[in-house]
Amino acid sequence: MTDLLAAVRFDSNGLVAAIAQQHDTHEVLMLAWMNRDSLAETLATGQVCYYSRSRRKLWRKGETSGQTQRLIEARIDCDGDTLLLLVDQHGAACHTGQRSCFFRADRDGTLTDIAAPLADPAILYGSPT
Amino acid sequence: MTDLLAAVRFDSNGLVAAIAQQHDTHEVLMLAWMNRDSLAETLATGQVCYYSRSRRKLWRKGETSGQTQRLIEARIDCDGDTLLLLVDQHGAACHTGQRSCFFRADRDGTLTDIAAPLADPAILYGSPT
Repeated sequence: MTDLLAAVRFDSNGLVAAIAQQHDTHEVLMLAWMNRDSLAETLATGQVCYYSRSRRKLWRKGETSGQTQRLIEARIDCDGDTLLLLVDQHGAACHTGQRSCFFRADRDGTLTDIAAPLADPAILYGSPT
Repeated sequence: MTDLLAAVRFDSNGLVAAIAQQHDTHEVLMLAWMNRDSLAETLATGQVCYYSRSRRKLWRKGETSGQTQRLIEARIDCDGDTLLLLVDQHGAACHTGQRSCFFRADRDGTLTDIAAPLADPAILYGSPT
């Protein structure tokens, strides 16, 4: 077991928050959650795997959309309850087709889109038939 | 009320995760939590205020240490349960005296300090008498 895995303080649901940041541009892409198995798999394979709280199962990032995340470096915060994953994001991190999930900003009280989608989610995830 | 405040989906504890990122260097500094009051105060004053889960009260960042965070821009993610705060961090964001809470990285299975503290916490927070 890696030191990092041993240092994580999983919460009462067995989860730890993980921030994904593009390693070269430093853009914050998303925040998701990991359990012990998803973190161990990520460290072993170098492909980021989260835990989906809604689907209650491992979520191999990009398994449906092809928008994978390759792990460059994993960091942990001072009290062990948050991870910072430096990644190489293929395409769009967000299920909306946006590069980053954080594409809306407060501008003088108005929520404003600050980026355009890279891709159509209907293409990434398949249109309903 | 700002659009942003209305768009937040607070969790069952009334909290939302907030990532603080230095606005110019793009360094991820920390992750903390906000309730509605702390977010409203932050948007109104431009000084970042979190909610301390351990102390169960508003946590005006830097009120003890002087290491304040000035809000530059607030962003929200696609599903409204995480904020990205672009801030101007005065000094050390971390209670250990480190600039960022994410100062430990996994390097081939060994957890390694990748930065030196900016300040001695005993000076920032006062030594026990």
